[in-house]
Amino acid sequence: MEGGSIYHMQLLKDKIRNDAKIIENRIIKVDNFLNHQLDISLFNEIGKEFKHRFANKEVTKIVTIETSGIAIASIVAQYFNFVPVVFAKKHAGINMTQDVYEAKIYSYTKEQEYTIKISKEFLTSNDKVLIIDDFLASGSALIGLINLLSQSDVEIAGAGVVIEKTFQEGRQRVLEKGIQLESLAIIDSIENGQVIFK
Amino acid sequence: MEGGSIYHMQLLKDKIRNDAKIIENRIIKVDNFLNHQLDISLFNEIGKEFKHRFANKEVTKIVTIETSGIAIASIVAQYFNFVPVVFAKKHAGINMTQDVYEAKIYSYTKEQEYTIKISKEFLTSNDKVLIIDDFLASGSALIGLINLLSQSDVEIAGAGVVIEKTFQEGRQRVLEKGIQLESLAIIDSIENGQVIFK
Repeated sequence: MEGGSIYHMQLLKDKIRNDAKIIENRIIKVDNFLNHQLDISLFNEIGKEFKHRFANKEVTKIVTIETSGIAIASIVAQYFNFVPVVFAKKHAGINMTQDVYEAKIYSYTKEQEYTIKISKEFLTSNDKVLIIDDFLASGSALIGLINLLSQSDVEIAGAGVVIEKTFQEGRQRVLEKGIQLESLAIIDSIENGQVIFK
Repeated sequence: MEGGSIYHMQLLKDKIRNDAKIIENRIIKVDNFLNHQLDISLFNEIGKEFKHRFANKEVTKIVTIETSGIAIASIVAQYFNFVPVVFAKKHAGINMTQDVYEAKIYSYTKEQEYTIKISKEFLTSNDKVLIIDDFLASGSALIGLINLLSQSDVEIAGAGVVIEKTFQEGRQRVLEKGIQLESLAIIDSIENGQVIFK
């Protein structure tokens, strides 16, 4: 665990152990509390923990990606002085301005590329951005978002993810960017339909 | 205002007056605080107000629709004893169970029909559901969600929307279902690029 935190998010690990559905010893489905039904109490514990992990960082904005990151980021923002949340849009409507930063992301789950967009007006030169997302696996989404943010003048304060699968290359890709990465539950492997935490 | 609330959500109205962009005297774009950048402090005031409006209702779950409703619903849930939030999915991934309730919704903005889905396991017979969404205009989205919920055994405790455009038929369609509807900012008309509140 980066930073030597004494917190362990036992509640989160218990939730994963008890409620996650493991598909093909590969996919961790957490629809029950993180991706479809949302456990707002747990999200508040997650918010406290991220505040602890990034206690020494100034944060003026939290940025996440549609859809799964939005609820988590919104609750987490309450622990960072209620800073605004901005989410990168995957499904930009016709009303969206054309004045956007964008990046392409390849989704291994959906086996297709998609484009994320953020209006330029919401990323300004005095912003110190904390990135929050639900999962880190291949790192495609997070790296895409970092590439998007790098087009603007914001400073990236760090990246916090709820669940990391260390057996994919995401962590290394984020650390190579020189960004502090904090994951609350780190899964080393999945064996016989059971998650093995680091 | 239904229920004779003495609250007026002046903060919300000020936000709309000062920050909303009016397009073609018809579309109210609130990307600055509600739909792209999210004002988490404002969402907390919204949560308090909905709690006030539905003070006499038992609520065990909050249900909303992807994407814009998710952040609001998550903050609002904190004022209803941190009940879980479930959001109807518009973009169901390949990992979604096939055991779902679904309903079709016609989007006037995007001029196309889409299907919303909720896993059956998250709507149970002892659930008393408060519906939360960002906008009420034609009522298509809300009626679609009500139709979806009606397939399950949940009881609908009420529906709360942040911004209502009364010059469309949404309110009437929801009230015909016998559901308590509470809107925090009711826009009577848009004239010369200015919103006129009720």
